[in-house]
Amino acid sequence: MTDDWVEGTAKEGDLVQLQGSGYKSHILRLQAGAVLQTHRGVIRHDDVIGQKWGTRLQSHQGNPFYLFQPGLADLIREIKRTTQIMYPKEISYVMMILGVGPGKRVLECGGGSGALTTAFATMVGEEGKVYSYERKPEIQALARSNLARVNLDSRVVFKLGDAADGFEERDVDALFLDLPNPYDYLVQAKASLKGGGYLGMLVPTVNQVERCLQALQHHQFAFVEVCEILLRYYKTDWDRLRPVDRMIAHTGYLLFGRSVDRLDALEEPEEVEGNGGEL
Amino acid sequence: MTDDWVEGTAKEGDLVQLQGSGYKSHILRLQAGAVLQTHRGVIRHDDVIGQKWGTRLQSHQGNPFYLFQPGLADLIREIKRTTQIMYPKEISYVMMILGVGPGKRVLECGGGSGALTTAFATMVGEEGKVYSYERKPEIQALARSNLARVNLDSRVVFKLGDAADGFEERDVDALFLDLPNPYDYLVQAKASLKGGGYLGMLVPTVNQVERCLQALQHHQFAFVEVCEILLRYYKTDWDRLRPVDRMIAHTGYLLFGRSVDRLDALEEPEEVEGNGGEL
Amino acid sequence: MTDDWVEGTAKEGDLVQLQGSGYKSHILRLQAGAVLQTHRGVIRHDDVIGQKWGTRLQSHQGNPFYLFQPGLADLIREIKRTTQIMYPKEISYVMMILGVGPGKRVLECGGGSGALTTAFATMVGEEGKVYSYERKPEIQALARSNLARVNLDSRVVFKLGDAADGFEERDVDALFLDLPNPYDYLVQAKASLKGGGYLGMLVPTVNQVERCLQALQHHQFAFVEVCEILLRYYKTDWDRLRPVDRMIAHTGYLLFGRSVDRLDALEEPEEVEGNGGEL
Amino acid sequence: MTDDWVEGTAKEGDLVQLQGSGYKSHILRLQAGAVLQTHRGVIRHDDVIGQKWGTRLQSHQGNPFYLFQPGLADLIREIKRTTQIMYPKEISYVMMILGVGPGKRVLECGGGSGALTTAFATMVGEEGKVYSYERKPEIQALARSNLARVNLDSRVVFKLGDAADGFEERDVDALFLDLPNPYDYLVQAKASLKGGGYLGMLVPTVNQVERCLQALQHHQFAFVEVCEILLRYYKTDWDRLRPVDRMIAHTGYLLFGRSVDRLDALEEPEEVEGNGGEL
Repeated sequence: MTDDWVEGTAKEGDLVQLQGSGYKSHILRLQAGAVLQTHRGVIRHDDVIGQKWGTRLQSHQGNPFYLFQPGLADLIREIKRTTQIMYPKEISYVMMILGVGPGKRVLECGGGSGALTTAFATMVGEEGKVYSYERKPEIQALARSNLARVNLDSRVVFKLGDAADGFEERDVDALFLDLPNPYDYLVQAKASLKGGGYLGMLVPTVNQVERCLQALQHHQFAFVEVCEILLRYYKTDWDRLRPVDRMIAHTGYLLFGRSVDRLDALEEPEEVEGNGGEL
Repeated sequence: MTDDWVEGTAKEGDLVQLQGSGYKSHILRLQAGAVLQTHRGVIRHDDVIGQKWGTRLQSHQGNPFYLFQPGLADLIREIKRTTQIMYPKEISYVMMILGVGPGKRVLECGGGSGALTTAFATMVGEEGKVYSYERKPEIQALARSNLARVNLDSRVVFKLGDAADGFEERDVDALFLDLPNPYDYLVQAKASLKGGGYLGMLVPTVNQVERCLQALQHHQFAFVEVCEILLRYYKTDWDRLRPVDRMIAHTGYLLFGRSVDRLDALEEPEEVEGNGGEL
Repeated sequence: MTDDWVEGTAKEGDLVQLQGSGYKSHILRLQAGAVLQTHRGVIRHDDVIGQKWGTRLQSHQGNPFYLFQPGLADLIREIKRTTQIMYPKEISYVMMILGVGPGKRVLECGGGSGALTTAFATMVGEEGKVYSYERKPEIQALARSNLARVNLDSRVVFKLGDAADGFEERDVDALFLDLPNPYDYLVQAKASLKGGGYLGMLVPTVNQVERCLQALQHHQFAFVEVCEILLRYYKTDWDRLRPVDRMIAHTGYLLFGRSVDRLDALEEPEEVEGNGGEL
Repeated sequence: MTDDWVEGTAKEGDLVQLQGSGYKSHILRLQAGAVLQTHRGVIRHDDVIGQKWGTRLQSHQGNPFYLFQPGLADLIREIKRTTQIMYPKEISYVMMILGVGPGKRVLECGGGSGALTTAFATMVGEEGKVYSYERKPEIQALARSNLARVNLDSRVVFKLGDAADGFEERDVDALFLDLPNPYDYLVQAKASLKGGGYLGMLVPTVNQVERCLQALQHHQFAFVEVCEILLRYYKTDWDRLRPVDRMIAHTGYLLFGRSVDRLDALEEPEEVEGNGGEL
């Protein structure tokens, strides 16, 4: 940080977001002399350093780019990935239901490129911890580098391993399985969860949901919920307001349950009531 | 805390969740000698103190209740309210897009009964802060008591006031307006937001969305998004898997924007791309 | 018909619809001296006879009722039933995809109370025919009476029988199975369908959909489509326009296929294209 | 028809559907010596004439094509158009609510390329009639040719004209306005509708819905309904069953009302009931 740094402005070393046409974002760490190449022109880092947050800048072609401090959703959307990532609409709801927040200890298996890991690491704060298991070294390496890019890697313990071999942690607050066959690892999940701890899963097919439901019951997980989230955007012309033409029809089915000692058959919520508490 | 308290068990003074049939929860603070009355029987706090988290207990009628440490979603669903609250499906997405997390300074206006306040207060952690403005004393009093109930009131600065008079804070990271006419207070919102700060709103009608969109453009908020979230649950019988019969059709329209210095006409995302970045 | 009957007015013997508050309808055949009892008062048929269609009448309590010639959707919604009926949103789409229209020969099995039967009978016109198979005599009796009530029974051939025993008809244009286990009767269905004829099914669970898909492939049905239809209403205040609070989350999954002589593995439509032709 | 024509086979002069990979269809009228060019090879009409319906044929490249008698949905999806057409999911529901069926007299304005016209003409049968108003000669010419292609033009009376000048017909059973500003023509619509007749409209934006609702009330249309239809397809692998990735987010808002003599303020259906009768 130089002596003449003014509060509210970007300085060398900052992680910044430059967002422009089509809402497209670039996330980068400012470095004197460096240059950002985009489809809409070139931006020199030196022209960004010292600018106020929220300022409109432009590429050498004159295309607009706004300078922002990136938020979690921005980081997730722009994350470098080789495999399918989870999206904000699922990640946010998963964290809400799993009670992920400052100070919590959260375990994930199937960390992939680190989108969910980034979210968990952000929300557990300095006092919490994320344990991230992944089987493939090259994918975990990408996740590590993604977390390091945003200075969150100190909050994550990366372990290379197979869910079948179990997890070393005990009494974690929440555990998320992002695997094709999470129903095969509920014994391992239960061993790591605290009593009453939250388990979450995301699977793409109903066939997998069926297997998950059987396994959740068998392994004493109570208050099971299965749901899907649909998000529809609208066009932003106030006098021609309508939904956009196309939308994501499906990302996956979310399942949640709580680890208990003994499972009774529990009545599900009455439909009229609102389905598991929502409303 | 007594000397013979065992780790992983509930003790006097703990905030606990007792969840039973129909997924119905009771949130209470344990107190020796106290008693919980429910529609499914009576539970003596003394029978809960000392029990392990995740244990199945029962009321005097024999109905099952599971003992849990409550998570944020549980607290929100059971919050005492006199007015309509926001629900987990919106609250979680709002926090994701607004970048609410540990250390953040977040301002809300129209705090109501405190559901959103509770979520914000949880997520900003010990280092962050929530500024909660509300016009009606009796409603703010209820919010204060709800936050105190869960020991989060120290993170919230409650101010009785009208959005029209503006907010005292400057450079907040995010600001949420839960009012019928948020479009009237964008000058006040902008004055409090840091450059590039996130603004969020929830309005029930399209008429209000139209007015919000006009105001957002007029007051230099960029990268505006309008969306709605539909959440559909499934019944949990693995061999008769299907969606529930009824669902919430509408809670409200969410709007988001970022505070900038000068607003260009920006191309919205192409539909095929994924609507504002999601996918 | 009396000598003084005026065109555009209701006469004795007409099937009429009286619709009032809450959009609630009563379907009745006018008869001199008869009386309609409703929760909102009494209406004498004599006060209806001779009135113009579209006229506002009122019960003895002064509650409004509008006099209409009922349309198909009105008849379906008010049909007397003992079992769950299919609703307009599915019935209409089924008829569209199955190509049900004037002159067609359509077979249904699992006729139930006759809602779908009524729709089929209406649309095939005088030249077409509906063959309706049902296993339970009392249910078919109700269907017969419902069809007779609207003078459509001459277009329907009711047969008491089990799908397992097959259907007598050959070369029908379309065939609809409204049964819990339609996948068990595809041989029988195929025997009755013309070459390239349309098969349709409605099942409530994904487990049944899985079985249907296997059977459809096994029994040489091509261009299979599986879909669900969500219908959301809006409140009708123009200045407080928004969706209603609650909606039907699920009625059933619709499956369609075409009977062919030999089934190749066919590429499904590309997602981007629009999913089986829609758009 | 030649002497050696066999029942259940295609003959020269027949309108046929050839459907292949990606569910793509070609609709054509068989003509000896003619040839169909497709992206997946060439098919000689002579190789189709005499074949049974439902038979698998193949192009010269060996790509499969199934021979069918086309149904209404197939015709609509393949119709030649220069402007946006209505799709089966809306057309089917519109016809259901409007009570379009054999013998009915139906008027449409804004006929466009004739997709809806084709559906109306099919369903009104030989005894019914469709009156189709359109302002632009070249578009109506396309519609005429589309209807002639499927031999339904005798059921349609095409009139070139502006809705503002009103319609010549009186006492039509149903009237559909497929225009950007249908709210401007409710006087004209009412003049043509029978008492209690059904009016329908499709508009893309909520702004237009607001204007329609005001106009419907002002011009004495009762039992107004506003709705939208979402259709989601599933992939057809029985053991990897899930929704497709993307779907149509919006086509338009449908509005319906019934023409009455005098409009009272009517209570809308209670949400819990099922929204206007559906369920």
